[in-house]
Amino acid sequence: MKAFVIDATWDPRPGYRPSPVEMETRKALIGSSVWRHPHGAFTDVDTPHPGPDDVVIKLQRVGFCGSDLHFFDTDGEGYITYPGLTRFPTILGHELSGDVVEIGKNVSHIRVGEPVTIEDMVRCGHCYPCRINQPIHCENLDEIGFSLNGGFAEYILVPARNCWSIATLQSRVATDSALYDFGAMVEPFTVVYNALVHGAGGVKPGAYTIVHGAGPIGLASVAMLRACGAAKIIVFEVSAGRRALAVEMGADAAHDPTQQAVDEVVMGETHGLGAYLLI
Amino acid sequence: MKAFVIDATWDPRPGYRPSPVEMETRKALIGSSVWRHPHGAFTDVDTPHPGPDDVVIKLQRVGFCGSDLHFFDTDGEGYITYPGLTRFPTILGHELSGDVVEIGKNVSHIRVGEPVTIEDMVRCGHCYPCRINQPIHCENLDEIGFSLNGGFAEYILVPARNCWSIATLQSRVATDSALYDFGAMVEPFTVVYNALVHGAGGVKPGAYTIVHGAGPIGLASVAMLRACGAAKIIVFEVSAGRRALAVEMGADAAHDPTQQAVDEVVMGETHGLGAYLLI
Amino acid sequence: MKAFVIDATWDPRPGYRPSPVEMETRKALIGSSVWRHPHGAFTDVDTPHPGPDDVVIKLQRVGFCGSDLHFFDTDGEGYITYPGLTRFPTILGHELSGDVVEIGKNVSHIRVGEPVTIEDMVRCGHCYPCRINQPIHCENLDEIGFSLNGGFAEYILVPARNCWSIATLQSRVATDSALYDFGAMVEPFTVVYNALVHGAGGVKPGAYTIVHGAGPIGLASVAMLRACGAAKIIVFEVSAGRRALAVEMGADAAHDPTQQAVDEVVMGETHGLGAYLLI
Amino acid sequence: MKAFVIDATWDPRPGYRPSPVEMETRKALIGSSVWRHPHGAFTDVDTPHPGPDDVVIKLQRVGFCGSDLHFFDTDGEGYITYPGLTRFPTILGHELSGDVVEIGKNVSHIRVGEPVTIEDMVRCGHCYPCRINQPIHCENLDEIGFSLNGGFAEYILVPARNCWSIATLQSRVATDSALYDFGAMVEPFTVVYNALVHGAGGVKPGAYTIVHGAGPIGLASVAMLRACGAAKIIVFEVSAGRRALAVEMGADAAHDPTQQAVDEVVMGETHGLGAYLLI
Repeated sequence: MKAFVIDATWDPRPGYRPSPVEMETRKALIGSSVWRHPHGAFTDVDTPHPGPDDVVIKLQRVGFCGSDLHFFDTDGEGYITYPGLTRFPTILGHELSGDVVEIGKNVSHIRVGEPVTIEDMVRCGHCYPCRINQPIHCENLDEIGFSLNGGFAEYILVPARNCWSIATLQSRVATDSALYDFGAMVEPFTVVYNALVHGAGGVKPGAYTIVHGAGPIGLASVAMLRACGAAKIIVFEVSAGRRALAVEMGADAAHDPTQQAVDEVVMGETHGLGAYLLI
Repeated sequence: MKAFVIDATWDPRPGYRPSPVEMETRKALIGSSVWRHPHGAFTDVDTPHPGPDDVVIKLQRVGFCGSDLHFFDTDGEGYITYPGLTRFPTILGHELSGDVVEIGKNVSHIRVGEPVTIEDMVRCGHCYPCRINQPIHCENLDEIGFSLNGGFAEYILVPARNCWSIATLQSRVATDSALYDFGAMVEPFTVVYNALVHGAGGVKPGAYTIVHGAGPIGLASVAMLRACGAAKIIVFEVSAGRRALAVEMGADAAHDPTQQAVDEVVMGETHGLGAYLLI
Repeated sequence: MKAFVIDATWDPRPGYRPSPVEMETRKALIGSSVWRHPHGAFTDVDTPHPGPDDVVIKLQRVGFCGSDLHFFDTDGEGYITYPGLTRFPTILGHELSGDVVEIGKNVSHIRVGEPVTIEDMVRCGHCYPCRINQPIHCENLDEIGFSLNGGFAEYILVPARNCWSIATLQSRVATDSALYDFGAMVEPFTVVYNALVHGAGGVKPGAYTIVHGAGPIGLASVAMLRACGAAKIIVFEVSAGRRALAVEMGADAAHDPTQQAVDEVVMGETHGLGAYLLI
Repeated sequence: MKAFVIDATWDPRPGYRPSPVEMETRKALIGSSVWRHPHGAFTDVDTPHPGPDDVVIKLQRVGFCGSDLHFFDTDGEGYITYPGLTRFPTILGHELSGDVVEIGKNVSHIRVGEPVTIEDMVRCGHCYPCRINQPIHCENLDEIGFSLNGGFAEYILVPARNCWSIATLQSRVATDSALYDFGAMVEPFTVVYNALVHGAGGVKPGAYTIVHGAGPIGLASVAMLRACGAAKIIVFEVSAGRRALAVEMGADAAHDPTQQAVDEVVMGETHGLGAYLLI
């Protein structure tokens, strides 16, 4: 099958000593300290087939994440700017949707033909963090599109437990095309959900909220805050186009921070309540 | 002015020894152990005038709370069934709205003519619970409509700090009549907000939720859950009329628990996810 | 090896329809509705050997839990009184400690010779609750000593991920005997930790606390509250012996609730602060 | 009586426009933008007498806070470096203890002769933040030792509700001298309590914790963490004397961050568990 594969040279910066695990697995924990001279190309690779606990998906949509761009963006010495977990060569892409075309023999929660999206973090399940129920800190973590093959391809193989049905979204969309669009946006929305609801503890209904920046994550935050019952959502963003999108996504107002002092806008739009309501 | 005043006889049940504070203030902490033979009547009483920190409101709406009914409802021995803080005679009514007609000389946050509602719990501000910022446990607590004169009258006097403007609701309603309706419902909604958001910690956006009973508090809960971003709200209620109201208020479904097993409904409507999603 | 095996008759009560999963696995979700006429006996069984992800432990201590007793306790119709997950015949015992004597080939976090205790709940890792990181709700849950062979035996086989080293406790104890005693008490303490810290949200340092009942779980609660920084721990317990133990475990006072009114004790010992500090 | 009074010149920096409230009250919200050329002196001032809701305390101890020092510390243009609420002239000092010598006629919770400490933040009780139970955001906030007369004097007058008995500490100390020492340290400990328990949500018993800096607040944090049940407390501090104090206060280890890499210390002392246990 055709796939877009990114590769780079393993060349740790002077002073960065890869750990024994990094040496053995060729997974760099701090990619920007290790990978140099990246290049990507459409390549012919073997079409994957599932092991007993895997699923193969035919892809319909793949999004471009800022992280993806940082695989190509290099500093003055040719190192990639992405500072996280990476193993190359790999097929790019972790914001994706598609249809299941083949399942392993142990797989029961997902059926062939089902529209799905994926969870990109693959935990080992037996290390200490996994055993204390903090899989995000898995010592053997892999990430689809970072250290495992991703979605810029015709097919992708993922562990069945990382595969999630989006069939229940069908009742909310008019077309299959919209269904796959939504499916590919699940990953960035989970980033927002995790940050806003888990990390920050959520917002109370009726909250006055501010979003700084209306890129994809900022725009998803606007939608998420609306869903959380925020009473007022004020956005600050320098791009006029993104300000317009923010209002379409549900923001009450979007301002250019280079033109208006944030404090004054906030005091004005919150009836002077801003200072303590925003806590 | 005309007012509806409720009175009863101070006659502690055998075995209930009023505390020295109860004896001195004639506020019963457990009304149902003290007050007997209640009766209410429309009476002429003096129209109130504000002290320096008070506000006088001309009333527009007053709701009937279940608590109000328990002032009249008596047991076999003639004691009222309301088990909380009470001092009689008092003017009934704590779910109310109206317009400010007179303010004390120290009052600055509210203006004459402003549409308002009230917060019925009046804290002392200097006892131990007030000093540790838990005014709900105020040792000298008074409650408007329970131990202080309430809203079944032409006018009511309240401490300015218990008076809250509803002017910002005007942009959400078509008529003043609706504004006052909403104002009088603030108090029951705060009960729900306090229970659901503060007490129970709120619900996450996307939550599957169940409401048992669709009386005023249950119906307000449906609206509040919708505002909190609940994905599914299932109501159980025996009255067909209230079930219909629940659906109008935003419930996804309303069932009669005498006709359908709760477990089966829940499993069906939550795609079998009910058991752990409802935690 | 010798083991104490409990068995009973699968005889679902009239009206209890085992689910297809219960029928297939012979795991009863509600043991008290299924198992009848229990009996236990010391029996010769095969000594276990580990699979690739397992560990075999030579046992040193096994505690008797209230749950264990309910396997023998029967109602008028001969059904066991334990209402939870059970599959018989099984070797009893889930509060245990011992030394690792054999490990599977994939096991790296635990060594032969290491003193250990176990976590009794065995999750599947691939069902929906496991995938949303709520393993306590695992749809394929097994429990050591309930549906898998437990510790009333010379040896026990457990999944390596359920095996936890207690070697770091050695610096806190004078003898190996005490080490194993402590190890066998880890399980009941985790019950308390989970209830007190996770479920109830913990207590703030300086809290005034009350423990009702000084059985094993109540006594562990006293120790846990002391570790959490509680300022005052008051116990209510009918048994004089257990009251004495509670004070040894760190309680400030232990009272007999049949002799003293709880309210009066609490008001007295908390300088009248009890009512709001205990929230 | 004798008192140490600090004064400075009201001279707002170019570009800093005091608000109408600042102009009227002469309370600067950002002291370092307003007060210039500070000077302090022992002065004869009138001995205070209580109003009906006040208390007068004869002082026994007053601590020196870093904030106090910033009243004298000036930048190149002669402005004080303290960036918070200030009104001069004022008597310095907010970490204090003493004995009540006179009380107002409404005061009932404190007696003449009682050893006490104070809460330095004086809320108004009627502004919006006070009414929504967030007194820390009081719009009319005053602070003893900052905008109201403090404790570097023979006597101090404070609102009774800001006065707290330390009599219950007597059973924990050998001498009155130690009682007053402890009393004067209550304020800095409340800073730590508020930050650690309220702000940061507390630590679970058994937590592995790190304290950066062992000044008074860092040392109080060590004691507070021990009280909260932390299993391990590791301190980083450049001063050898303060490192020794940290260990005396209950730290497990104290390291010089200029000599040892924090990461390596942490990984070593937490058995490699540091990375996720510190969350």
